[in-house]
Amino acid sequence: MCDSIKVFAPATVANVTCGFDILGFAVDQPGDEITLKKSRSGQVRIVEIKGDEGALPLDPDKNTCSAVIKRFLKELGSDQGIDIFLEKKMPLGSGLGSSAASSVAAVYAINELMGRPRTLEELLPYAMEGERIACGAAHADNVAPGLYGGFVLIRSYDPLDVIRLKTPEALYATLVHPHIEVKTKDAREILKKQIYFRDSVRQSGNVAGLITGLLTSDYDLISRSMHDHIVEPIRSILIPGYKDVKDRVMEIGALGAGISGSGPSIFALSNDEEIAANVGLEMKLIYAGFEIESEIYVSRINQYGPRII
Amino acid sequence: MCDSIKVFAPATVANVTCGFDILGFAVDQPGDEITLKKSRSGQVRIVEIKGDEGALPLDPDKNTCSAVIKRFLKELGSDQGIDIFLEKKMPLGSGLGSSAASSVAAVYAINELMGRPRTLEELLPYAMEGERIACGAAHADNVAPGLYGGFVLIRSYDPLDVIRLKTPEALYATLVHPHIEVKTKDAREILKKQIYFRDSVRQSGNVAGLITGLLTSDYDLISRSMHDHIVEPIRSILIPGYKDVKDRVMEIGALGAGISGSGPSIFALSNDEEIAANVGLEMKLIYAGFEIESEIYVSRINQYGPRII
Repeated sequence: MCDSIKVFAPATVANVTCGFDILGFAVDQPGDEITLKKSRSGQVRIVEIKGDEGALPLDPDKNTCSAVIKRFLKELGSDQGIDIFLEKKMPLGSGLGSSAASSVAAVYAINELMGRPRTLEELLPYAMEGERIACGAAHADNVAPGLYGGFVLIRSYDPLDVIRLKTPEALYATLVHPHIEVKTKDAREILKKQIYFRDSVRQSGNVAGLITGLLTSDYDLISRSMHDHIVEPIRSILIPGYKDVKDRVMEIGALGAGISGSGPSIFALSNDEEIAANVGLEMKLIYAGFEIESEIYVSRINQYGPRII
Repeated sequence: MCDSIKVFAPATVANVTCGFDILGFAVDQPGDEITLKKSRSGQVRIVEIKGDEGALPLDPDKNTCSAVIKRFLKELGSDQGIDIFLEKKMPLGSGLGSSAASSVAAVYAINELMGRPRTLEELLPYAMEGERIACGAAHADNVAPGLYGGFVLIRSYDPLDVIRLKTPEALYATLVHPHIEVKTKDAREILKKQIYFRDSVRQSGNVAGLITGLLTSDYDLISRSMHDHIVEPIRSILIPGYKDVKDRVMEIGALGAGISGSGPSIFALSNDEEIAANVGLEMKLIYAGFEIESEIYVSRINQYGPRII
């Protein structure tokens, strides 16, 4: 057994247009890198965090990574000391599942370091607990795809029912993170509590179409189904340039596009690598036109979740 | 080419719990039988209707079968005379897609009789037109599964987007038609126009789970997903004995149960023929206890749509 381990865990896109709170997928990049080293201190300590510009707490009970690891070790009955080195290689508060990537990286790494006492499925509640610490709510639509890879359906939260979906081979994600602040809390609060039943039926039709398209690798059906008549019209108001980006990427051949999580990042899916790259260039150009800085990420759908590096 | 043809078209279950207005499936029985005979009259005529107790119109412009056939022939540029003999082998106004079975039988039969000038897909709009004549609205959630067989998804009505879903092999339907009148119009009008968004999200989760279960033959997932938190609580009020039936069939091993279409019929799905038969016996017993007559139908999911007999 090693005395240290380094793990990458991926960014994730939750909601995926019509799949609000029930659907998410993982990408190959960006993501977080965590290094854990066994120590004789008997303590779980945050030694270093890079790339967060000082935003993340170092207190081991408040930091997502350390809190998750402490809980994991406690339930294992272990008093192993752990030194944590976290490298945020993705933006915080971007709607790309930053806290989920940290939670998943931490729980995956500690499980491997301790000789894999838990199955992947058993790790999910720990990662969700990490989300609770970071966001106040134990959502699974980022941590589940982050942990399992591919597309994941959260059929139900009570009881928790998480289903891994077969993901089509030739699916590429393009992400843009424009430097705009959208608070998850605000993005939640502006949603309507009541909606028209007919809009709910339309949304259900699209959810059913999207799931069918994914499971049968029907890219045209995926494209026809990627519509959100309920959340997007409201949340997109918080994201300058949203309509320009969406219209343009559809024009140049993306299958569909939407808000990543609660934004401000925008994602697009394509079934062609070149289109996915062009989508990224156009996204960058549009935000440059608004004098808003942005990062672009182009990658395949991550099919495997975290990996040891 | 023959001068006459006899066709069976199946009953159908629309909505399928969480799939309100977007999902339906066909059963092997009951259904309608139609016989068409070429005549030299140049007219499309209803010669005989059996089994409707005089409820269906004989006027060729108001009767679903003749109206559909007239339109089909007109668009084909044919002045072929047709004599129609319809045998209703299923109850009317039962929520089992009675008018859809007649529409589908008529359009399938005339297409075969005329040498199959149209594809199956091209027949759908004619069958939907039949629904418009019978019910005032061109719904597709009965006619599409009736025409194609198996489970069918109506992703969208505008534009119309109908997707045939792979149906698991070992799936059996049990139907009970209690002799209670529920008017489709009433069943529509009591629905709420606005619903809680959180209920819509739950419903979406179940729709996604049900579709995934169907496409991967995961019977347990099908069972976990067959819940309707929106329509069932309201419509089931119109159906005496509903809760008794549902509780009992779940107790004895059905995967799930719900209102068939707008009721009053109730359907259950099972992945075992013996359970499906027992479910039927229990349904019958419960309604007998309420002194309500009922018919029971137990069959496989119909995988092929109409057939020539």
